[in-house]
Amino acid sequence: MKFLVRMDIRVPEAMPADDLAALQEAETAYSQGLQRGGEFQHLWRVAGQYANYSVFEVESNERLHELLTGLPMFRYITTTIVPLATHPNAIAR
Amino acid sequence: MKFLVRMDIRVPEAMPADDLAALQEAETAYSQGLQRGGEFQHLWRVAGQYANYSVFEVESNERLHELLTGLPMFRYITTTIVPLATHPNAIAR
Amino acid sequence: MKFLVRMDIRVPEAMPADDLAALQEAETAYSQGLQRGGEFQHLWRVAGQYANYSVFEVESNERLHELLTGLPMFRYITTTIVPLATHPNAIAR
Amino acid sequence: MKFLVRMDIRVPEAMPADDLAALQEAETAYSQGLQRGGEFQHLWRVAGQYANYSVFEVESNERLHELLTGLPMFRYITTTIVPLATHPNAIAR
Amino acid sequence: MKFLVRMDIRVPEAMPADDLAALQEAETAYSQGLQRGGEFQHLWRVAGQYANYSVFEVESNERLHELLTGLPMFRYITTTIVPLATHPNAIAR
Amino acid sequence: MKFLVRMDIRVPEAMPADDLAALQEAETAYSQGLQRGGEFQHLWRVAGQYANYSVFEVESNERLHELLTGLPMFRYITTTIVPLATHPNAIAR
Amino acid sequence: MKFLVRMDIRVPEAMPADDLAALQEAETAYSQGLQRGGEFQHLWRVAGQYANYSVFEVESNERLHELLTGLPMFRYITTTIVPLATHPNAIAR
Amino acid sequence: MKFLVRMDIRVPEAMPADDLAALQEAETAYSQGLQRGGEFQHLWRVAGQYANYSVFEVESNERLHELLTGLPMFRYITTTIVPLATHPNAIAR
Amino acid sequence: MKFLVRMDIRVPEAMPADDLAALQEAETAYSQGLQRGGEFQHLWRVAGQYANYSVFEVESNERLHELLTGLPMFRYITTTIVPLATHPNAIAR
Amino acid sequence: MKFLVRMDIRVPEAMPADDLAALQEAETAYSQGLQRGGEFQHLWRVAGQYANYSVFEVESNERLHELLTGLPMFRYITTTIVPLATHPNAIAR
Repeated sequence: MKFLVRMDIRVPEAMPADDLAALQEAETAYSQGLQRGGEFQHLWRVAGQYANYSVFEVESNERLHELLTGLPMFRYITTTIVPLATHPNAIAR
Repeated sequence: MKFLVRMDIRVPEAMPADDLAALQEAETAYSQGLQRGGEFQHLWRVAGQYANYSVFEVESNERLHELLTGLPMFRYITTTIVPLATHPNAIAR
Repeated sequence: MKFLVRMDIRVPEAMPADDLAALQEAETAYSQGLQRGGEFQHLWRVAGQYANYSVFEVESNERLHELLTGLPMFRYITTTIVPLATHPNAIAR
Repeated sequence: MKFLVRMDIRVPEAMPADDLAALQEAETAYSQGLQRGGEFQHLWRVAGQYANYSVFEVESNERLHELLTGLPMFRYITTTIVPLATHPNAIAR
Repeated sequence: MKFLVRMDIRVPEAMPADDLAALQEAETAYSQGLQRGGEFQHLWRVAGQYANYSVFEVESNERLHELLTGLPMFRYITTTIVPLATHPNAIAR
Repeated sequence: MKFLVRMDIRVPEAMPADDLAALQEAETAYSQGLQRGGEFQHLWRVAGQYANYSVFEVESNERLHELLTGLPMFRYITTTIVPLATHPNAIAR
Repeated sequence: MKFLVRMDIRVPEAMPADDLAALQEAETAYSQGLQRGGEFQHLWRVAGQYANYSVFEVESNERLHELLTGLPMFRYITTTIVPLATHPNAIAR
Repeated sequence: MKFLVRMDIRVPEAMPADDLAALQEAETAYSQGLQRGGEFQHLWRVAGQYANYSVFEVESNERLHELLTGLPMFRYITTTIVPLATHPNAIAR
Repeated sequence: MKFLVRMDIRVPEAMPADDLAALQEAETAYSQGLQRGGEFQHLWRVAGQYANYSVFEVESNERLHELLTGLPMFRYITTTIVPLATHPNAIAR
Repeated sequence: MKFLVRMDIRVPEAMPADDLAALQEAETAYSQGLQRGGEFQHLWRVAGQYANYSVFEVESNERLHELLTGLPMFRYITTTIVPLATHPNAIAR
């Protein structure tokens, strides 16, 4: 079951550079783990913004919630979520 | 070069059923042709709405314009377009 | 898996009264069938508006899409959809 | 009399972790008390967001106000409130 | 129990003048009946617009829905509804 | 001449409790003085929010400005203002 | 007492050219009458749009309502209204 | 060449009262100088808000930019700008 | 003096194809005339939409209004207008 | 390939004047370097606001992202991005 998620990130200006670097490193590790596991299928930057569009493939809304709130930077992320369904015109790959 | 495109479709209520069927058939053929050609990489329905999210891989904005305005139903579609870029956290597939 | 769906209904002014009555009767039958089947768990009017909030319990986004687009009045309905998850503070019932 | 309430929560970044934990514990106790008492009938998370949808069954707008402003986290919550009414198509349960 | 209701009215341009006059006459009779009955407590025009703000005092959301959907012009009215509560600073009258 | 005013209040989180109490006490006194004087005719809470709807009866826009900016909490209030006019369907009271 | 009024005009596409010309002529006469009478103090086009900003000087909201709803094109105009007050920094003229 | 400018002012809460008074004094002097010079033709308060509508008469967009960014409080002002043109229905004064 | 103008075009669905073709031909001729004359400096399509961004260089707001309302398709165009000024960081060309 | 980018700049109020001056100097150098290199083709101020419209000519979305996120003030800039395409009515220059 797929969901399109837009994430807009806004880190507090006062966060020390070291803390930010550590946070981003944790984010990378977490994100790549999910991608390798198959539940995080696409990840694209929004060109020119500190934001991304992601596609998740999960078994339930609960799992989606768990994955997103587990993001190390979740506190600084505004999410917009769209449930997707198979399109009859989509060709098999 | 990737673009995320949301399409919201609104067909005139007065359109005869046959015209609509012919239009949708043309749309399917056009869409699947682009998908087979590689420029139309993803196509998902928005669950519960007459709308979709699509990802195009094109060589230029001009080509994106050409593809979208070539949609048989273009006149009845409202597009929202986001240029995407590679995300450093995305793993190779 | 639960989804909260808001439906705003707008029927064309020119629709003959008989057609509208038939449409609403079909809507009632369809809606109550889904409710009896367990996938349509809650249905409330928005007080003072031709709109409702509904809660669906479905196995997938695909099924949600199928249920909603199957509404006899779907063409005249604007849907707003929010995926829900279990809340840790909710007590068992 | 039912009301659908969306709550978006935003806790100040500077709040010490202990204070936050105590606040959340108080919120859980308050929320579950209301649920047991029958006035707080449904509580769902918005998947992927620090937000929820709740349905209250109260005798008056005054009581709704009292319940919501009594939330320990009320100060950090943005509420959106929709009065609900019985839907003629809803089946008895 | 009070509700503030904003009504924005938009009558179809094609409605014959006689029909419109009859509709407005029915609206006046209905509105004044409710006002005399005590459930429709205030009615003000929005200066410079075909719109009004109304305050209803009803026993339930169901009754509010019944009153509003009973308006002869309901089909042409967009409603915005705010549940009100007693304000502690309000003086008795 | 009547004006409908919505006030949304947002007090700085850092304000000491004593200062807030003093401010609210001053607000109550000011508000009730205007109500007794006849220029502040209605005051209702928005159920479930730190906000109110007020109706003022003043001789001019200048007087409205003077009354509102004189609110002890004015600095923390966002106002939305709608000029009202007599409605021809309103019955005399 | 001054009010700033923005008017956005949208005439039905099907209106015959003669009817439109007659309507606009009536609008001009009405508008200039009010300007000569002193209640309609300023009238500017919004550059590049079928819209204007107007300043009215009237004795009451009721009078403002009367003037605006008396516009021959009122039915095709969307109004946005802001009550103005004297600014302490404004110099006498 | 005329421009309608709305200015919404929001001064930081932490600004010491003396600094604010000095800033407002400078603003008054600057504003009145422009008004006397003829480029700042109208200045009205928005009733009930810390905001104003102003009309500037300048020879170019560059000059408008220069005047507005020269406001002592510019940093705390959100501007909304509408280019105006002569209206054919406006009478000569 | 430069203005950035966004134009969103929406032609009535019922317009006969011949009328539309004639209208578009007139639009092209008008647009290219202005471009050759130097007042219409840039014209770009919005990729994937029936819309454009244009930059005009005119001597006054009145002239801008004259140029835009002279567009053969003006009636079907929604304009959004931003006055531009020279940027100090822009290099000479 | 062209992109229209609007940038709204908001610098933290607490930033020391020296830091701000250094930041703006770096911004100027960076911006002018890109302009000289041909990828940054137009730069205009929004009259009366701390904002600009820019046109970039880049070979890809990735390059656009790289240029924008490289802006020394990027952290304080909100970007709005529109992909442009050649307009058939544009004349050659």
